[in-house]
Amino acid sequence: MAIFPFDIHATEDRARSGTLKTPRGDIATPAFMPVGTAATVKGVYMDQVRQTGADIILGNTYHLMLRPGSERIANLGGLHKFGGWSGPILTDSGGFQVWSLSKLRKMSEEGVEFRSHIDGSKHMLSPERSMEIQAEHLGADICMQFDECTPFPATPDQARASMELSLRWGERSLAAFGNRPDQTLFAIVQGSTYEDLRAESAKLSIALGGFGGYAIGGLAVGEGHETMCQVLDVTTPHLPTDRPRYLMGVGKPIDIVEAVYRGVDMFDCVIPTRSGRHGQVWTDVGAYNIKRAEFAENDSPLDASIDCPASRDYSKAYLHHLIRSKEMLGQMILSWHNIAYFEDLMARIRAAIEAGTYSDFVAGFRTAWDQNQAGETG
Amino acid sequence: MAIFPFDIHATEDRARSGTLKTPRGDIATPAFMPVGTAATVKGVYMDQVRQTGADIILGNTYHLMLRPGSERIANLGGLHKFGGWSGPILTDSGGFQVWSLSKLRKMSEEGVEFRSHIDGSKHMLSPERSMEIQAEHLGADICMQFDECTPFPATPDQARASMELSLRWGERSLAAFGNRPDQTLFAIVQGSTYEDLRAESAKLSIALGGFGGYAIGGLAVGEGHETMCQVLDVTTPHLPTDRPRYLMGVGKPIDIVEAVYRGVDMFDCVIPTRSGRHGQVWTDVGAYNIKRAEFAENDSPLDASIDCPASRDYSKAYLHHLIRSKEMLGQMILSWHNIAYFEDLMARIRAAIEAGTYSDFVAGFRTAWDQNQAGETG
Ligand SMILES: [Zn+2]
Ligand SMILES: [Zn+2]
Repeated sequence: MAIFPFDIHATEDRARSGTLKTPRGDIATPAFMPVGTAATVKGVYMDQVRQTGADIILGNTYHLMLRPGSERIANLGGLHKFGGWSGPILTDSGGFQVWSLSKLRKMSEEGVEFRSHIDGSKHMLSPERSMEIQAEHLGADICMQFDECTPFPATPDQARASMELSLRWGERSLAAFGNRPDQTLFAIVQGSTYEDLRAESAKLSIALGGFGGYAIGGLAVGEGHETMCQVLDVTTPHLPTDRPRYLMGVGKPIDIVEAVYRGVDMFDCVIPTRSGRHGQVWTDVGAYNIKRAEFAENDSPLDASIDCPASRDYSKAYLHHLIRSKEMLGQMILSWHNIAYFEDLMARIRAAIEAGTYSDFVAGFRTAWDQNQAGETG
Repeated sequence: MAIFPFDIHATEDRARSGTLKTPRGDIATPAFMPVGTAATVKGVYMDQVRQTGADIILGNTYHLMLRPGSERIANLGGLHKFGGWSGPILTDSGGFQVWSLSKLRKMSEEGVEFRSHIDGSKHMLSPERSMEIQAEHLGADICMQFDECTPFPATPDQARASMELSLRWGERSLAAFGNRPDQTLFAIVQGSTYEDLRAESAKLSIALGGFGGYAIGGLAVGEGHETMCQVLDVTTPHLPTDRPRYLMGVGKPIDIVEAVYRGVDMFDCVIPTRSGRHGQVWTDVGAYNIKRAEFAENDSPLDASIDCPASRDYSKAYLHHLIRSKEMLGQMILSWHNIAYFEDLMARIRAAIEAGTYSDFVAGFRTAWDQNQAGETG
């Protein structure tokens, strides 16, 4: 299979900035991938997503296999053509959503049988089926090995058993993925909060050979910011420096800033669009709700410093009105702005690493964030 | 007040094509005005609305006075600035929505007291208040006289009483509107289905002097297509040929085509966006639902002949998937397409009138429409 070239332009301590080169285009790292669950980034046009600076989006195997069905997407020319996104796409393995959304799961060494949360229909996911869906039907540029999402909290024995299952599934994923000149496969490192297990998972995943990148799984499942940072502290040192590292399902701006500081290169999260649909506006010090009465006659834009129509061209008063009136356009503009905010944050992170000022960036970001959180709860 | 120049380029029988010139831009007629109820055309960006060829949009006095409040919009610089539409805006008088949406109406010679359907708060509309809201607070380019929407059906006595009330309110509207160099006021002709009342309403409205155009009210309230055509047949001959005629709240493509044939110049309707939100796609022979199973793997666009991304760049299969998945983007694209379809229809209508082929256009349109309706119900 392909190992996409990954040029690291600058490092500062563990943080790195670089370019992951795919046949469908370059990905500037650290990168934030907007989530296009059902072949759409909810409420945002693909050209708007592109305009925010996003180089790559994520698709969800679980959702797409259920509706419209991965065979159907294959018949229609693959996920890029179907959803109208010509840049790179990363698909998850489906494992996490089976774990969090489906009904009546039956887990075995072979894989997982489950019933759709949409219509109760019966389906199966295994390493082989996940590879068929991701690589063959959807045509993802970056595919993820099939894994088991280790629950949190987990005892050391549970965490080891789960980690070892994911390793065996990783090996089967590699075999099933086969030789694909234009697509790559990422490993997923598990091990819950246990340093020895994380190290072992990383070492054995690397030993399998052939992975184009390494994801850190089992986080963003309720463990909290501090624990997440601690796990990253003991995980990224065990990953190859010359391959991209992807922290799945993360996160808030502070999570991203701290994870980059610990050597992570790629992120995805539904938070920009989900928050946007609920009237929330992301900033460097957290999110606020535009419904708050104070914005009713506020004529200023969300953030004039961001080069995006959503951030720059609509007044807070107008957005306040739209969200209060449950108008779709309010959700559309806030979702768009939030993606633009996250992409702008990534651009500032990359610039700071390249300027050698990322430590200062992190310190300042953390201080402002914590002060505001104190204000929020105080 | 201003009487906007209205150049008639071509006529064919009663149908006319022309240009209504406003300080905020020209309106090619016959014109379809997308409805921007709450300062947004639901689910569609204003630049997309503009791109479809719409020269003017409509705003709803009733909705805007309740939320965010017309005084607030005035404080924020008026409706054009607030909603981000720099072209002409027509606002309705509020009368129709008070009649159809509000609670606990109390009608008097003075006006209407009512309670908001949103929060039960108490409000009042009168000719003077409606003019203040439309002309002063919202800053509409074309304002509508305050009128009573005559219920359908109505006895001759009811219809006469209602028509005469609207006339008195029209006179008060003119006085309250006053001298506005950049804004104009349209009369509303009532009279239900009665030829003599329609003629009298038109004659007395004209006699009041100073109206920049004439709307035909009390239609699109359940009377049906045939009755609507009959009322137009006995109303438009009584209206000045040199002033625009506006058929409020109409309608389906066949309604528009037949009304233009009877001398109408302007239309508005929520049908493109409302249908779009429910998965319906408008065409020359009616609307179909994209959810139908036959579209699941249909790779063709909605209508490649319409110069609009929504009509041209998304497959039916993708839209089928989005609407079935209740994805906002499906509603957004279908709403946008439907507006583009209506605007494209208006452009074809104008071209046919200018080519002197509108009679043929109407005959062909009517035949295809009726055949399809027969097929739909057969
Ligand atoms: Zn997340
Ligand atoms: Zn209508």
